[in-house]
Amino acid sequence: MGDEGQPNATLKEISEPVRIELDALESHFKDYLRTDVPVIDSIFQHLLDGGGKRFRPLLVLLVASCNNSIPPEDINRLAVAVEFIHTATLLHDDVVDQSDVRRGNRVAHHIWGAEPSVLAGDYLYSRAFSILVEIGHLGILQSMSTATTSMARGEVLQLLRSYSVATTIEEYIEVITGKTASLISGSCRAAGYLANFDDIVLKALEQYGLNLGLSFQIVDDILDYTAQKGVFGKTTGKDFLEGKVTLPVIILQEVLGSGSRREVADIFLKEAPDPDDFEKVREMMNQEGVFERTREIARQYSDKASAELAVFPKSDSRTSLEAMVKYVVYRKA
Amino acid sequence: MGDEGQPNATLKEISEPVRIELDALESHFKDYLRTDVPVIDSIFQHLLDGGGKRFRPLLVLLVASCNNSIPPEDINRLAVAVEFIHTATLLHDDVVDQSDVRRGNRVAHHIWGAEPSVLAGDYLYSRAFSILVEIGHLGILQSMSTATTSMARGEVLQLLRSYSVATTIEEYIEVITGKTASLISGSCRAAGYLANFDDIVLKALEQYGLNLGLSFQIVDDILDYTAQKGVFGKTTGKDFLEGKVTLPVIILQEVLGSGSRREVADIFLKEAPDPDDFEKVREMMNQEGVFERTREIARQYSDKASAELAVFPKSDSRTSLEAMVKYVVYRKA
Repeated sequence: MGDEGQPNATLKEISEPVRIELDALESHFKDYLRTDVPVIDSIFQHLLDGGGKRFRPLLVLLVASCNNSIPPEDINRLAVAVEFIHTATLLHDDVVDQSDVRRGNRVAHHIWGAEPSVLAGDYLYSRAFSILVEIGHLGILQSMSTATTSMARGEVLQLLRSYSVATTIEEYIEVITGKTASLISGSCRAAGYLANFDDIVLKALEQYGLNLGLSFQIVDDILDYTAQKGVFGKTTGKDFLEGKVTLPVIILQEVLGSGSRREVADIFLKEAPDPDDFEKVREMMNQEGVFERTREIARQYSDKASAELAVFPKSDSRTSLEAMVKYVVYRKA
Repeated sequence: MGDEGQPNATLKEISEPVRIELDALESHFKDYLRTDVPVIDSIFQHLLDGGGKRFRPLLVLLVASCNNSIPPEDINRLAVAVEFIHTATLLHDDVVDQSDVRRGNRVAHHIWGAEPSVLAGDYLYSRAFSILVEIGHLGILQSMSTATTSMARGEVLQLLRSYSVATTIEEYIEVITGKTASLISGSCRAAGYLANFDDIVLKALEQYGLNLGLSFQIVDDILDYTAQKGVFGKTTGKDFLEGKVTLPVIILQEVLGSGSRREVADIFLKEAPDPDDFEKVREMMNQEGVFERTREIARQYSDKASAELAVFPKSDSRTSLEAMVKYVVYRKA
């Protein structure tokens, strides 16, 4: 935590080595999506306009840019496919979570109904696999299908553990490994295949992505309590209202005495918690230093991610991948 | 229609050449599914116990059995994957359609809620692709990812055209090509790759599956009006209540005078149609010979499917594939 005050690179600075390719992706997304079905195109347009960090495609571009001999269209295919898979899970999550705001926009299924959101998610998902098949590399297909299977499993686990206040840190890590880290890990490994790295680097990239993904999600879960409205593209308190027992909740229970712990559990299990309940929990977290403790755990995963980069060739890309691990921990959105 | 009275082979008889392999699939489904997550396993168990015709796996087995040198585990993988993809779409359709009965059982999302159904569908879908990747054949992956993309597109089109009484036959065929025929077509082609057939046979298998699939769905849409409860594992009138403008509805409008046509359209566009409305439409269809006319169109597609088999090596499998086209047209369930 010593470097918490230190200025870290912005995502824009991190993207510098692949800025042109990253910007160009926006039109590739559209090209790969055109469906001749207006309602699908509208949903996608809406989601694409919503932006998002393009975090996964950026990782793909950074890893792949270490090798000049990769056909650019294959890099684009992989970058587009990982973003499509990510977007598909957002669409399905929104139906599952019944959430109201995603990236500060109205959620697709509130505009078009749940049906097209489920089906548009399926479409994106299928398109992603078609695009991956076009690359024609079985290792990439294997990485990505393993990742999506792990994601679906993680999402189900998360649903099962909703409102389960006794969730352990290990169970929480199992959930976020599936729902978030597996796709980031698979994307990094897949990009490593494209770049023709050997098994040692592939394994390191997989572990880099895994630990970076865990750090990323832990900080996401902090931001659900601490983000200022408007800065972060989500409603604060969303996880709380959905009964998601995230790391800040687990840590809070650990540090509290049994009396207060009981109180938190009772709030969490309420039929209809209100904004005051949320404020109360957030205030307790603040007082008990929960956010610092939670961020410290995120930092440990980021450190692990960083260490994996030792086998990666020194380059501007590697500098960016190193900067990414800090960005993830200290980001405000 | 001349052979309508002629006894056709049962599905059991058709399966005879691959009976042992087909029966063995039931345990393979389970083996490939075990997730260590009890609620997912329960959903799958429920769906697997529900049975279903195993129509797509049967086609895979019949096509693949023409070549003795295919590793049996690859045949099983393909057969399992196509059934998983089919089951995933059933799960998502049920959420989209809000239907009550599927194969005579309670629909999964009524027992466990919509959330696990969406996510379990995603899981099945991802597993299917992982299993296909294990086969390690890009042609198979390409056939299957093209099929699933086409399915998702067809499902969205169908949703868009709900309650659109002016749907044309061409638009209807476009929808069912996507939602039903593309997976059957892709499964046949993929099985052809396994069996090492040349491009001519692969193309013929693709066309066989496409036309068989169209015939299959058209008859499904007839059965939604004519099936006796209990015989067919669906509620009669489901399509009608969901405002699906299927071929019997299109044909009915074609044969009616403009006055009665208007009446049908009005019934179809009712806010809350009741069983009497359904009976009325069904009775009109009966009187106007709509079911025979519709079945005749199914028969034409089956004939096209049959013709494609000319290039397929003569064998017990081919006899079964030929019997399948008649079974599909004249089946009662």
